[in-house]
Amino acid sequence: MNSSILVVTAHVGDFVWRAGGAIALHASQGTPVHLVCLSYGENGESNLAWQTPDISKNTVKQTRHAEAQEAARLLGIKTVDFYDLGDYPMNITPEVVSRLADNYRTLRPDIVITHPERDPSNLDHSKTYETVLLARMQAIAPGHGSNHIKPPQVLCFEPHQSELCDFKPNMLLDITPVWEQKYAAMRAMPTQRNLWDYYERVALQRGAQAGRRGQANTRYAEAYQSIFPSVHTTFL
Amino acid sequence: MNSSILVVTAHVGDFVWRAGGAIALHASQGTPVHLVCLSYGENGESNLAWQTPDISKNTVKQTRHAEAQEAARLLGIKTVDFYDLGDYPMNITPEVVSRLADNYRTLRPDIVITHPERDPSNLDHSKTYETVLLARMQAIAPGHGSNHIKPPQVLCFEPHQSELCDFKPNMLLDITPVWEQKYAAMRAMPTQRNLWDYYERVALQRGAQAGRRGQANTRYAEAYQSIFPSVHTTFL
Amino acid sequence: MNSSILVVTAHVGDFVWRAGGAIALHASQGTPVHLVCLSYGENGESNLAWQTPDISKNTVKQTRHAEAQEAARLLGIKTVDFYDLGDYPMNITPEVVSRLADNYRTLRPDIVITHPERDPSNLDHSKTYETVLLARMQAIAPGHGSNHIKPPQVLCFEPHQSELCDFKPNMLLDITPVWEQKYAAMRAMPTQRNLWDYYERVALQRGAQAGRRGQANTRYAEAYQSIFPSVHTTFL
Amino acid sequence: MNSSILVVTAHVGDFVWRAGGAIALHASQGTPVHLVCLSYGENGESNLAWQTPDISKNTVKQTRHAEAQEAARLLGIKTVDFYDLGDYPMNITPEVVSRLADNYRTLRPDIVITHPERDPSNLDHSKTYETVLLARMQAIAPGHGSNHIKPPQVLCFEPHQSELCDFKPNMLLDITPVWEQKYAAMRAMPTQRNLWDYYERVALQRGAQAGRRGQANTRYAEAYQSIFPSVHTTFL
Amino acid sequence: MNSSILVVTAHVGDFVWRAGGAIALHASQGTPVHLVCLSYGENGESNLAWQTPDISKNTVKQTRHAEAQEAARLLGIKTVDFYDLGDYPMNITPEVVSRLADNYRTLRPDIVITHPERDPSNLDHSKTYETVLLARMQAIAPGHGSNHIKPPQVLCFEPHQSELCDFKPNMLLDITPVWEQKYAAMRAMPTQRNLWDYYERVALQRGAQAGRRGQANTRYAEAYQSIFPSVHTTFL
Amino acid sequence: MNSSILVVTAHVGDFVWRAGGAIALHASQGTPVHLVCLSYGENGESNLAWQTPDISKNTVKQTRHAEAQEAARLLGIKTVDFYDLGDYPMNITPEVVSRLADNYRTLRPDIVITHPERDPSNLDHSKTYETVLLARMQAIAPGHGSNHIKPPQVLCFEPHQSELCDFKPNMLLDITPVWEQKYAAMRAMPTQRNLWDYYERVALQRGAQAGRRGQANTRYAEAYQSIFPSVHTTFL
Repeated sequence: MNSSILVVTAHVGDFVWRAGGAIALHASQGTPVHLVCLSYGENGESNLAWQTPDISKNTVKQTRHAEAQEAARLLGIKTVDFYDLGDYPMNITPEVVSRLADNYRTLRPDIVITHPERDPSNLDHSKTYETVLLARMQAIAPGHGSNHIKPPQVLCFEPHQSELCDFKPNMLLDITPVWEQKYAAMRAMPTQRNLWDYYERVALQRGAQAGRRGQANTRYAEAYQSIFPSVHTTFL
Repeated sequence: MNSSILVVTAHVGDFVWRAGGAIALHASQGTPVHLVCLSYGENGESNLAWQTPDISKNTVKQTRHAEAQEAARLLGIKTVDFYDLGDYPMNITPEVVSRLADNYRTLRPDIVITHPERDPSNLDHSKTYETVLLARMQAIAPGHGSNHIKPPQVLCFEPHQSELCDFKPNMLLDITPVWEQKYAAMRAMPTQRNLWDYYERVALQRGAQAGRRGQANTRYAEAYQSIFPSVHTTFL
Repeated sequence: MNSSILVVTAHVGDFVWRAGGAIALHASQGTPVHLVCLSYGENGESNLAWQTPDISKNTVKQTRHAEAQEAARLLGIKTVDFYDLGDYPMNITPEVVSRLADNYRTLRPDIVITHPERDPSNLDHSKTYETVLLARMQAIAPGHGSNHIKPPQVLCFEPHQSELCDFKPNMLLDITPVWEQKYAAMRAMPTQRNLWDYYERVALQRGAQAGRRGQANTRYAEAYQSIFPSVHTTFL
Repeated sequence: MNSSILVVTAHVGDFVWRAGGAIALHASQGTPVHLVCLSYGENGESNLAWQTPDISKNTVKQTRHAEAQEAARLLGIKTVDFYDLGDYPMNITPEVVSRLADNYRTLRPDIVITHPERDPSNLDHSKTYETVLLARMQAIAPGHGSNHIKPPQVLCFEPHQSELCDFKPNMLLDITPVWEQKYAAMRAMPTQRNLWDYYERVALQRGAQAGRRGQANTRYAEAYQSIFPSVHTTFL
Repeated sequence: MNSSILVVTAHVGDFVWRAGGAIALHASQGTPVHLVCLSYGENGESNLAWQTPDISKNTVKQTRHAEAQEAARLLGIKTVDFYDLGDYPMNITPEVVSRLADNYRTLRPDIVITHPERDPSNLDHSKTYETVLLARMQAIAPGHGSNHIKPPQVLCFEPHQSELCDFKPNMLLDITPVWEQKYAAMRAMPTQRNLWDYYERVALQRGAQAGRRGQANTRYAEAYQSIFPSVHTTFL
Repeated sequence: MNSSILVVTAHVGDFVWRAGGAIALHASQGTPVHLVCLSYGENGESNLAWQTPDISKNTVKQTRHAEAQEAARLLGIKTVDFYDLGDYPMNITPEVVSRLADNYRTLRPDIVITHPERDPSNLDHSKTYETVLLARMQAIAPGHGSNHIKPPQVLCFEPHQSELCDFKPNMLLDITPVWEQKYAAMRAMPTQRNLWDYYERVALQRGAQAGRRGQANTRYAEAYQSIFPSVHTTFL
């Protein structure tokens, strides 16, 4: 099979902190992983960059672009598409939805990975979730072109504070084999170096939870919540 | 009293599959039932039509228009208003809300029947619910004209997969007396013939649930969730 | 038809504050209304009585018994059954469930009215709800005797602080015609006179909410939440 | 690996209607499937049997025992344990929990399949769910014996009316390959023949839902909700 | 410290009925309290004004403007900003969000008080909540200017019918010391005099609930729900 | 004022991992903190102890008793009461509730700290929560003795996997000043040394979340959820 995975994030760092393990793992298994970043996170998620006196917004964006490219390379991502929509807050137009739907039709992902539905501290995340679902509708509709796709599963990655976002993970992914890659990608984003320790601990906590239920040597994991029921031919 | 009911749906088939029984039943009881279809469902809910080679979008819309007219006739609907907004996804502007509010002011419904609030697989449904509530606000406000109405009850009909939509029915409507009419209306929509069996079974399942709590001869039913508390002068 | 209603409460005052209007209204409509009080509320809901120096528990119970009898008379209740189980907390045994199931089989209610499922400040209320459902199972089972009944609807009345109890009323009952009776029954319970004003205001607030959706002359109402979907032959 | 599955139900019919497909499927894949029935459902779920004049409870239990044995045989169940606790309602003692924990320690299941947490119309189901979790605790505790087990996943099967039970399935199991077996097991339970059509339609509805997301030839499915996050080494 | 509070409401009356006590209390404690009213509520919340024959919308708006100014004065509000966006429904553009974000940056509030997230009967309230969160994002982002602020806590005040809005108050504010001020401000809004009794009773009910947990002389209170976890250095 | 705090846990280690910071902090502020441990956690939460060949249950209990005493001493706990009820699962009788109610009446706590309501992986935690609420009822009822207390606030501490337990913290307590004490108490429980790193990271994650909203030098925190609305005289 020619499976593929598409990751859609609001800001440029989200794919590393929240789904870097899943990306590296599936890439290492031969699955093409594609990335769409709706913004560079230049306004609200690049705070350390703004401490440089008189830095311009363009410079901040270029910095984040370069960091994201390097992190994507380290994780084995196949294609990256930067929409550059601006952030805090983000403005989603029907054209953005159409562009994403076109990405779906070209990439034909089995799984789309994105933010969970709710986040009162960051509505860019909620809007990204909604955009992912809107584009999914457009991409599966034959009236928008005969290259329509089968509806992909949508998995939500972990937000910054799970309980605030009603995040209820039903899947833990063992990312121990690719942890070094994820950690390297995190280090490739010095503009958000304040998050390095936090997300290392997230991975260790989820690893400890997964280890209780899975293999003893699981040390790092990521948590995901599936939106649509999954279809099985066996439970084992 | 001059009661009336207004049904508002995202796509042209929804009123048949989800509320055809309620429509036929109340029409047969002498209540005027009106219908607003926000779109023809031409893009995302007419898949069999698109299997015809080189069919144009206009032809698909004409086909769905004709099917809906015939189904509406069979169910005894008094007026049908097609907004033709396009679908998958649908775009709701303030003008759409105003147009619907005008419909409310003219038709003065006691009950508006529409989609439930949530449906991650189909945000057109969520938007329709929101539009119904927005128009309700506009229609009851005296500042928008002295023909303002009393706030109608809003009932949500059953979505395709109830648990995915957080649908919690608190009312089961016995549609056994009008089942033949509903079934005929379903058959009048051959573009979605893939749904005939599914919604016949939905009616039988809801009928079995209603039969346990109501009359023994209930065989078909529809499920509804009321949004606002209902007011009673007795429980019996 | 020979409809009847059974009210089941944890403590002796609950039927007055929370369902006195529904009781008086249906009694006035000719429906037999029966009452089961699982306890006298002597320990935790008779605080003013305990301010009398050296009062004995028996005296408190006798006082509450007399108050309840008088309130029941004023509301038109047909039969009252005091289980005298003690309270704060209450202990429910299988024998209590059986006794209540026997009441169901004798009284054959169409509707059972009781406390909502949750109340962290008062688990006697939660236990009463659970007991009502357990007895419902026992009463409908033919294996427990051939006089088994049809499953009655269960309606939950309003708790002291609705949001704390996840109470979501979907029915408002206009009790304006019987308000004087309810108020008299409230006054017949001087041991809880601290609640008189509070529950008069509850009735006025629910009346105001009902008045917006129902008749203009509604002034007092009670709120209820139905547990099982209701079956309808019309919505009007 | 020596995987195994344990199914725990309140009444004797539940394993057929709700999990018969999962049982037959995994048995056909070589996985040992074991069954615990806490009661024969003789009081509340054998209504047709009680229509025979003067039938004794013992005869009803024997009938249901024989039906269950035959259905279990048809589905390929390896062992059946009838606890014979009585029903409507069921009484769970610490001894019952210990007995079930011993079953866990002997059978060492990877997955336990049971009722969902809530069911206001049938608290035997809720109690069974709670018993499954209590026994799980006892079975994993080294202080109760050195043959303690790893904590199994718990999957909940579909209740009679899903929305009433807050059932949120996140897994659909394609049971098309074993449908004939499931249907034969259903027919082996003539005491509940009133459920044959209902559960055939449940399977068809879940099959239709699964077919949209999985293989085109899926015709029958069962729905499940997992209680604990599952651990993955890949999403594909 | 230079703490301040910002209240943001959809319509001109909301700050009085729902947060008048909190405003007067904090103003009396020396905290500057600022107010933003997104609309005058001229269309949907000025019904008594529209009973004057041939009244113009401008006159209604001037009336509500004057009432709000007087109520604000009575409560001790420091600044009032009327956005005059229109209502029923309200239209929120990115410019509105930016304007509010600028208010945040100038006023630098520790707490923003607004409507709860959900209200099916009044989506202007939901939109106001969303606008408050969007402006919060914009105001804290350094990319939108170096005068960015620390993220303020958001507290939601009580809606008209709490259960309909999923309102779950976790804070009760004792407003007994400033009740006379709040009541005077209510009386300064004769256009909504139909709400005087209702919100007096709301205050008495919340006061009764607070009195059980706080001081015996609490007679009036307001209920609030905090969106973000609060940070403590002690629980006492 | 003579405030005091009571902590009630299912197993002997819970007070350290989950509330050790709150205990040390309030003790250091001069507030008496009391502890009730319903069991030693000897069966299910002492796994490392059971790796010693032929160790007896009594020895395990003595080990845990000694560890708990030392940890309590390090945290400054004033009194410890071990109920020794056994665990996995725990059996709660009315006598246990009465004993705890007596503790309440003697200690007269303003706040009781315990487990959250739900934990499918550990029903001992749910039972403890229920016991805390039942004892609260008994302790406030004048019918159970004239030394009845005012109802205390109940705060729930963080469970092992928050999302699985529907834990929604609304309070973060900065425990940076007492972290060394908490860490020492953790080290005093070598039987559960597998949890040392996990709960250090929990404290760091909650500290990072609190630091965003509170003081910059917050490094460690604990999360709590209040059950009852708190009463305030100011928000600042």
